[in-house]
Amino acid sequence: MKQSRIPLVTFVGRSGSGKTTLLEKLIKELSGRGYRLATVKHHSHAGFDIDAAGKDSWRFAQAGSQQVVIASPDKFATYWKLDHELDLDEVIAQVTDVDLILVEGYRSSNKPSLEVVRSATGLELVGMSEYRIALISDVQMSIGVPCFNINDIQGIADFIEEQFLKMVF
Amino acid sequence: MKQSRIPLVTFVGRSGSGKTTLLEKLIKELSGRGYRLATVKHHSHAGFDIDAAGKDSWRFAQAGSQQVVIASPDKFATYWKLDHELDLDEVIAQVTDVDLILVEGYRSSNKPSLEVVRSATGLELVGMSEYRIALISDVQMSIGVPCFNINDIQGIADFIEEQFLKMVF
Repeated sequence: MKQSRIPLVTFVGRSGSGKTTLLEKLIKELSGRGYRLATVKHHSHAGFDIDAAGKDSWRFAQAGSQQVVIASPDKFATYWKLDHELDLDEVIAQVTDVDLILVEGYRSSNKPSLEVVRSATGLELVGMSEYRIALISDVQMSIGVPCFNINDIQGIADFIEEQFLKMVF
Repeated sequence: MKQSRIPLVTFVGRSGSGKTTLLEKLIKELSGRGYRLATVKHHSHAGFDIDAAGKDSWRFAQAGSQQVVIASPDKFATYWKLDHELDLDEVIAQVTDVDLILVEGYRSSNKPSLEVVRSATGLELVGMSEYRIALISDVQMSIGVPCFNINDIQGIADFIEEQFLKMVF
């Protein structure tokens, strides 16, 4: 698969640290600023079901179709059964026509990451320090990268905009 | 988007003619013969929901993400919101790593088609005759192309195999 050239940032942190809610707010903020976004959600366990049992597309997958595509005037969806898990570069090769990719998870990837930590779920960091460009927390921490309050959506969006979206030509 | 070179056949016919059930049986038969398949399902109306309300990926789409990707060890799914409907060539450009693409619908496309007609829903043909390579029906019809009984899954699969899957090098 081809390598994507769209800017990308991962959001890593423990389960329960608030990554999904933070991402939801950031998507609203950044799309409100006019950016086109793709979001990648990683499930670490097999067996999630994207499609609804009994629908035609689900019947096709059950019958043995490796890939199913559903197209309508305003939406396009596709899913594959995999023999092996894709790495993040293979995943983002499927992303098209956006300004920025926001990724939840993939803490072992070699991509710039924002690490989310909250006192309720423990302040131990789980991401790789060499790719960590900022911290997002409910407490102030000093570890040599910018630290944003988890409720400072404007500030985090400004930082993402500066780092990934303001190109100087 | 790039042009797909994977063989493709469309299944056209009136709503209720039995296309989905036929396709389900053919997927079982052809995947049982060892072929890797992709299936494309066309919804002619806007508003179908691929994802389940309340799930994280649905929340990301609702928040304003143009594309959402969900990746797990055994499945990979993605969907886009579209500004305009994709044509069939754009749709199949997203298909990878299969031997054959089976398409339900897109009766106006310039692709080889099998037309499904049943006496219960009327014997009037709706597909384009210049792309029709066979007829599938519950009655015998003579219109200058092979006519298969709708229950003759083996025979239809043999025909598809001969037309699209047996390459002579």
